[in-house]
Amino acid sequence: MRPLDLIIRNGTVATASDVFRADIGIAGGRIVEIAERIEGDAAVVDATGKYVLPGGIDSHVHVSQPSGEGIVMADDFESGTRSALYGGNTTVMPFCLQEKGKSLREALKAYHALAEGNCYTDISFHLIVNDPTEAVLGQELPALVRDGYASLKVFMTYEDLRLSDAEILKTLDVARETGATVMVHCENEDAIRFLIEKHEAAGDVAPRAHASTRPAAVEREATHRALTLAEIVDVPVVIVHVSNGQSMEEIARARSRGIEVIGETCPQYLVLTADDLSGMDWEGAKFVCSPPPRDKAAQQDCWRGIETGVFDLFSSDHCPFRYDDERGKLNPKGRRSFRHIPNGIPGVETRMPILFSEGVMKGRIDLPRFVALTATNHARTYGLYPQKGTIAIGADADLAIWDPQAKRTIRHADLHDGADYSPYEGLEITGWPTTVILGGRVMICDGELIGRKGDGAYRPAAARTTAFPAKA
Amino acid sequence: MRPLDLIIRNGTVATASDVFRADIGIAGGRIVEIAERIEGDAAVVDATGKYVLPGGIDSHVHVSQPSGEGIVMADDFESGTRSALYGGNTTVMPFCLQEKGKSLREALKAYHALAEGNCYTDISFHLIVNDPTEAVLGQELPALVRDGYASLKVFMTYEDLRLSDAEILKTLDVARETGATVMVHCENEDAIRFLIEKHEAAGDVAPRAHASTRPAAVEREATHRALTLAEIVDVPVVIVHVSNGQSMEEIARARSRGIEVIGETCPQYLVLTADDLSGMDWEGAKFVCSPPPRDKAAQQDCWRGIETGVFDLFSSDHCPFRYDDERGKLNPKGRRSFRHIPNGIPGVETRMPILFSEGVMKGRIDLPRFVALTATNHARTYGLYPQKGTIAIGADADLAIWDPQAKRTIRHADLHDGADYSPYEGLEITGWPTTVILGGRVMICDGELIGRKGDGAYRPAAARTTAFPAKA
Amino acid sequence: MRPLDLIIRNGTVATASDVFRADIGIAGGRIVEIAERIEGDAAVVDATGKYVLPGGIDSHVHVSQPSGEGIVMADDFESGTRSALYGGNTTVMPFCLQEKGKSLREALKAYHALAEGNCYTDISFHLIVNDPTEAVLGQELPALVRDGYASLKVFMTYEDLRLSDAEILKTLDVARETGATVMVHCENEDAIRFLIEKHEAAGDVAPRAHASTRPAAVEREATHRALTLAEIVDVPVVIVHVSNGQSMEEIARARSRGIEVIGETCPQYLVLTADDLSGMDWEGAKFVCSPPPRDKAAQQDCWRGIETGVFDLFSSDHCPFRYDDERGKLNPKGRRSFRHIPNGIPGVETRMPILFSEGVMKGRIDLPRFVALTATNHARTYGLYPQKGTIAIGADADLAIWDPQAKRTIRHADLHDGADYSPYEGLEITGWPTTVILGGRVMICDGELIGRKGDGAYRPAAARTTAFPAKA
Amino acid sequence: MRPLDLIIRNGTVATASDVFRADIGIAGGRIVEIAERIEGDAAVVDATGKYVLPGGIDSHVHVSQPSGEGIVMADDFESGTRSALYGGNTTVMPFCLQEKGKSLREALKAYHALAEGNCYTDISFHLIVNDPTEAVLGQELPALVRDGYASLKVFMTYEDLRLSDAEILKTLDVARETGATVMVHCENEDAIRFLIEKHEAAGDVAPRAHASTRPAAVEREATHRALTLAEIVDVPVVIVHVSNGQSMEEIARARSRGIEVIGETCPQYLVLTADDLSGMDWEGAKFVCSPPPRDKAAQQDCWRGIETGVFDLFSSDHCPFRYDDERGKLNPKGRRSFRHIPNGIPGVETRMPILFSEGVMKGRIDLPRFVALTATNHARTYGLYPQKGTIAIGADADLAIWDPQAKRTIRHADLHDGADYSPYEGLEITGWPTTVILGGRVMICDGELIGRKGDGAYRPAAARTTAFPAKA
Repeated sequence: MRPLDLIIRNGTVATASDVFRADIGIAGGRIVEIAERIEGDAAVVDATGKYVLPGGIDSHVHVSQPSGEGIVMADDFESGTRSALYGGNTTVMPFCLQEKGKSLREALKAYHALAEGNCYTDISFHLIVNDPTEAVLGQELPALVRDGYASLKVFMTYEDLRLSDAEILKTLDVARETGATVMVHCENEDAIRFLIEKHEAAGDVAPRAHASTRPAAVEREATHRALTLAEIVDVPVVIVHVSNGQSMEEIARARSRGIEVIGETCPQYLVLTADDLSGMDWEGAKFVCSPPPRDKAAQQDCWRGIETGVFDLFSSDHCPFRYDDERGKLNPKGRRSFRHIPNGIPGVETRMPILFSEGVMKGRIDLPRFVALTATNHARTYGLYPQKGTIAIGADADLAIWDPQAKRTIRHADLHDGADYSPYEGLEITGWPTTVILGGRVMICDGELIGRKGDGAYRPAAARTTAFPAKA
Repeated sequence: MRPLDLIIRNGTVATASDVFRADIGIAGGRIVEIAERIEGDAAVVDATGKYVLPGGIDSHVHVSQPSGEGIVMADDFESGTRSALYGGNTTVMPFCLQEKGKSLREALKAYHALAEGNCYTDISFHLIVNDPTEAVLGQELPALVRDGYASLKVFMTYEDLRLSDAEILKTLDVARETGATVMVHCENEDAIRFLIEKHEAAGDVAPRAHASTRPAAVEREATHRALTLAEIVDVPVVIVHVSNGQSMEEIARARSRGIEVIGETCPQYLVLTADDLSGMDWEGAKFVCSPPPRDKAAQQDCWRGIETGVFDLFSSDHCPFRYDDERGKLNPKGRRSFRHIPNGIPGVETRMPILFSEGVMKGRIDLPRFVALTATNHARTYGLYPQKGTIAIGADADLAIWDPQAKRTIRHADLHDGADYSPYEGLEITGWPTTVILGGRVMICDGELIGRKGDGAYRPAAARTTAFPAKA
Repeated sequence: MRPLDLIIRNGTVATASDVFRADIGIAGGRIVEIAERIEGDAAVVDATGKYVLPGGIDSHVHVSQPSGEGIVMADDFESGTRSALYGGNTTVMPFCLQEKGKSLREALKAYHALAEGNCYTDISFHLIVNDPTEAVLGQELPALVRDGYASLKVFMTYEDLRLSDAEILKTLDVARETGATVMVHCENEDAIRFLIEKHEAAGDVAPRAHASTRPAAVEREATHRALTLAEIVDVPVVIVHVSNGQSMEEIARARSRGIEVIGETCPQYLVLTADDLSGMDWEGAKFVCSPPPRDKAAQQDCWRGIETGVFDLFSSDHCPFRYDDERGKLNPKGRRSFRHIPNGIPGVETRMPILFSEGVMKGRIDLPRFVALTATNHARTYGLYPQKGTIAIGADADLAIWDPQAKRTIRHADLHDGADYSPYEGLEITGWPTTVILGGRVMICDGELIGRKGDGAYRPAAARTTAFPAKA
Repeated sequence: MRPLDLIIRNGTVATASDVFRADIGIAGGRIVEIAERIEGDAAVVDATGKYVLPGGIDSHVHVSQPSGEGIVMADDFESGTRSALYGGNTTVMPFCLQEKGKSLREALKAYHALAEGNCYTDISFHLIVNDPTEAVLGQELPALVRDGYASLKVFMTYEDLRLSDAEILKTLDVARETGATVMVHCENEDAIRFLIEKHEAAGDVAPRAHASTRPAAVEREATHRALTLAEIVDVPVVIVHVSNGQSMEEIARARSRGIEVIGETCPQYLVLTADDLSGMDWEGAKFVCSPPPRDKAAQQDCWRGIETGVFDLFSSDHCPFRYDDERGKLNPKGRRSFRHIPNGIPGVETRMPILFSEGVMKGRIDLPRFVALTATNHARTYGLYPQKGTIAIGADADLAIWDPQAKRTIRHADLHDGADYSPYEGLEITGWPTTVILGGRVMICDGELIGRKGDGAYRPAAARTTAFPAKA
């Protein structure tokens, strides 16, 4: 047996199915031994009284993505992955956005250049299909899937991103042929435009109108439509950032028709509401994201979805814009109408602590479900399994050691992203990752960053080979 | 580190969340090491090319249970657990039936006496609450739950077993107070009686009438009622042997109301139909069980439930009666009307091979889901976890080594239960457990029984300590 | 053509399908002519500016019914029908309660004796089947149905009234054979008892607990069960006094399974809520009825059911008890625990004005739907059509002339029932019946009672002859 | 009282709510008297033993509509209305199709010219909004609605007709403002295109593929979307030609969200199936319509919808093309691929006999429901009530006298439309209209046409003035 590099000792280990007391032995960046007791010369991390979990995978993260009109995202790969790491993540999956008229390869080249040498976590890319020409669908995409870009995202909203149903069908068809996995942002753009025009005509332009012009009905409609398109093509599909019970019902109905659906929700749908958008002096802009947070009943519905398996993924949809910034939330146009406030909020660092504190510590879910929702299912859905997302022999030694006793109040001053606020400011949290290990390297040790920029690397993803994406 | 007793080498190990290549080290009857490569002096089982899975737990098994009218069950603890072992199980959970007017302790004493020294697998008991007097509910049950009898079963059908809604509510209330888990057999007895009388009055007495007098509607009704009673009491509940899409819909609706439901289905609902009860010369009696198998559409529904998480448990509901036997299916009364055919079919040995072959090998489910459905979820639901149901450090070394290439045709002649037929006769199977290990002892080695009667022992079960039973 | 006795001139006539300007000619107590203009010697009622509607039929009315424990109902046939008449009704259908151990004939004899010569409206009886012996089901009921007692009511709640599922099935079976129509009061008695005991044990005995111990779930459960029993027997069924959206969903689901269901709701579910039971000093007792009023959302659901056809019947469930009376709501036991407050509230006089004002005048429903819900559907459901419930050639000249401009505030002092309060006190109403005609006799003229006790008579009802009860 | 022109004597009269024996007196083209017995000098039609019903209104009829590619519709206003009259109709509502780039006024002018002097029934127009420019929506449509064109139709399918969601929203918004009523053809065009291309690529080009490329899922999707758009705008909507249970479920769910939906189905969904499209030698083309007929289960679902009120309208969707004709079903392109077979089948003459025979005579519905589904609800939905659609004082004397004993087998040779086949050839019918009266004129007398071309006239329709369209 090869000599160990690192031993994690005395922790309570959890996977998506199990919780047990064990030592973990790491060699060559991978987990090679799990045992009652591991002796040896290796470096030791003492995890007594702590949980040893798979490093988090946040599969829904936007960084360095152009947002039009001079708006600039608040995080690049460096700050975004550093913030993620502090929040217990060892892998993030940003989006690579195809520009109209350009190829996906071009976009990938640019994103790889931005990422290269700058990451604190491993990364893998989703491709946003924005211009699904015949060349893109027929040649480029199949080749890219084989090359390790196995998840595609399509939008049903945003004027500059939305695809037609015909384009979505063709993209899903490529996914069926290649084993790629398609994520869909479900909101009916036309209905939103209609409502925006009504609101603006009525002089209702404050941030709160962002929520009123994107009611649950427009999300429910698009969800049903996306699921029907997947039914027509006969291919699994991921419905991202589900915000309410009506959309959840569509997912359940689709499953009862035999459609394989992976559902995702996010922290904003558990702890924020549309009322947060009503803040004085345009403060509501801090909570503008799409779909918008809804109400208390919708929060309860989303919790139920987490508890009962409607949702398999819990992501941040981190999409940070600085608030007090001409290039962010309060850009000149954004200040005049909610329509121009950039969509998105930061959250990559707080995602797991929020679910741990509100979910595990409050008894709504157990540790294995936490692991499944924050790591394992992401790896399995997006082709990073079994290297990522679990604690098993042969897997990458990506680990987060959580202190279930740690008590913190979320303050943006303590966070590490590039935004200038947190939508979760003031939320009290029990449980926080104190030590984070990436590929066997200790990146954060007792809360202290000791890893370096560039320690994280790009990891290709594999296409589905079976009919259905697995989930834990 | 303590010396190992046994090493399982080179197998592909699966848990409810993971699949990986590893060696497993066993000492003192428990798993103490999982690693890339384990060296040492210990005995070795070579699992090259095989799957190493947690030993199956069949949590729905009837043996040595009195059935009234001189009818005799075809299996006792010896033959029942031997048959189970051959089918890859290392734990079975039989039912201990309280007689009217007697205490549960009395029944337990008798069952323990029957089991003691006779088992080839570990066992743990469910208590059938048949006479929920104040003394039973107020004193006996709480004490029994503390003593390791933490799952209760109530019947809504069978004249001599059914409880009233009031009795079920009180039993659920005890479960809420004590952390016991309640299993419910959901069929509306009054409606069945009504239909039986109609059929008999019309001279329709052949076995097929068993299915007609227990239509899906009576199961759906009782399922909705049981779930409402659990909702009233606010306690989790297990709905056993669900046979059709209508009942599944009730489970889904209950979950959407926030009720924690564990759903179970069985092989008979995947591969048999009511038409099997139409066999010539009373052959249909071989397939008489309750609820009855339905139709092809219901089979598809049940598969969907397995694939999409409506069901967490896959059990046999093994309840064997000899066919060609005056004390079994063809007892004198049973020959005159379907009403007297004893309810139940054998299946403890074929449960896992059927799901493996039809589910895993045909691509409907993956290995982790197979493990969850056949072992892990049983242990977690019924308080045997983490000792049982998984492959993890500290767990009992209960393992089944499966040969995914093995091809067999189910023939009762090759099985080991006490019945004289199999309802699955002729079904072609790919994949079979060839070696079975119980607490570190090799019980079956390459298909050969080498364990002895009495190697299996009674294992107490723990009550729920959290709000919700966990599932993988 | 025979000479006319009475002409209603210049009114706006409405039926369940039509609204038109016409004169109505009456001879021999029946409508014999409807025309643009009717000349002749007959007496004339001028209806200029008024609506001429079929006299209301209230098919859910309790009068002179024994309530046990010395409790006395506040209305007998005289006061009950007088109050009904003032509210625009020309027919009411009280219940005739079979006592345990006695025949239905005996009960009928007693009720006929109480009614004979005392009624201001026509009446017809529903039979409450309380002791469904073989003799009752096999002989008495079929004969009674032929004799004009064609609607049966069964209770799933109240300890002294509830039938078992077996008894309900047998009663439904008689209905199937004879064409009788079965009304079901759907609440799960066992669950209610369970909750009552919990509440009393916790010292929660005030009237508000009446609502808490009868949550929507117990009504939903019993509704689903009743509908399943009807499905098993394959017979239409009436679900009375539906109070909430969950039960409505059961009705909709049953229809989608092909079951013929007639749904009924009542004013208390449109304008009261459970909060009304929280009044100081036991005032909440004034609102104790079963099912209890729910919340604002349930009110909206019930309105939706009225608008979209979930409900075909709108009745009062008039069941009056005096409040400030030792034999009524504030009887000695009732004062000690909600459990003993007699169930029921008065409302026969206010039923139609409430629906007219809140429904028609607020634009929720149109006049034909009002007529269908308050008159025509009652006649069609319960075998009084075509004599009753419409304005058509040959029908009884039962008419109510409504002044859509009349504005009133409901004050019990202005009503005519035997209770000492109205649960609707203070509700502002637009539209009231000013003239009421029974069989061609003007009973109330411009608000003045001119008819006499005994002008109303018993009218037998016909059994269904087709598969399905018709509705307008 | 004015002298009568015509008396219908001794018939059994039915409206949407009532059935009664009466004479009907007609003067000045309108019904002025309904009475037990009407004497007088007028002409008399003896209806002894017959049903006197409101003349049918077929609100979904295509005649003289350009179909592109040289295809020619088989009926013009003359043959279409003559055929309708023979089938018991006195009003038909054809569609007036706006051409792209042109105004609706231009189209109306052309259609009026085609209709003027050529009709055997009264007519009123629906406007197909095909080019909803700002001018059309902002000025032309509001004026047209005021002028008597109060119903609009939008298509979600057909490349040359489909509107975007944005365009539908704007059209619905005009309807909300003006009280117009919007009909929606719900099928997802993109999904159909996708499937057509797949089928053609696979060489699957025979007529049966028409059904496979328009599965229920594409109709369900578009139905949910249309209903959501109506929900967003908050306006009632008509979903036309619903073919299956999945779409019906969307209607029911929308109603439960409070949306006012009028549902329509047609004879083809009750008596045809997709298998009819599989005829030899391209005979299946005779059954090509959209949505396509489905299967037996869908037929049962549609019957249930008729019985339980999911559907308020029963129309023909008469859209005739000759089969054996270069300009019809067997046009050169149509012979090469199902894609080019013109969509639509004849049926204006057989609509009511099919529903009468299969519905009324087989006991599924009663006469009032038949009248509501075939006449009254059409008039109320589309602004022709109270002049049309019922038998009431003041209404147009549009009547059909039905002989419930008449037995006929549908043979195209006996029909009067311009097509060369009937999709219902060979269907045996009990009950047929023998005498048809339009505005007091006897047009068909005992099966003999005595009315003349031009006796029918255009009738303007009124906009909704209340929130909700009424239905009987």
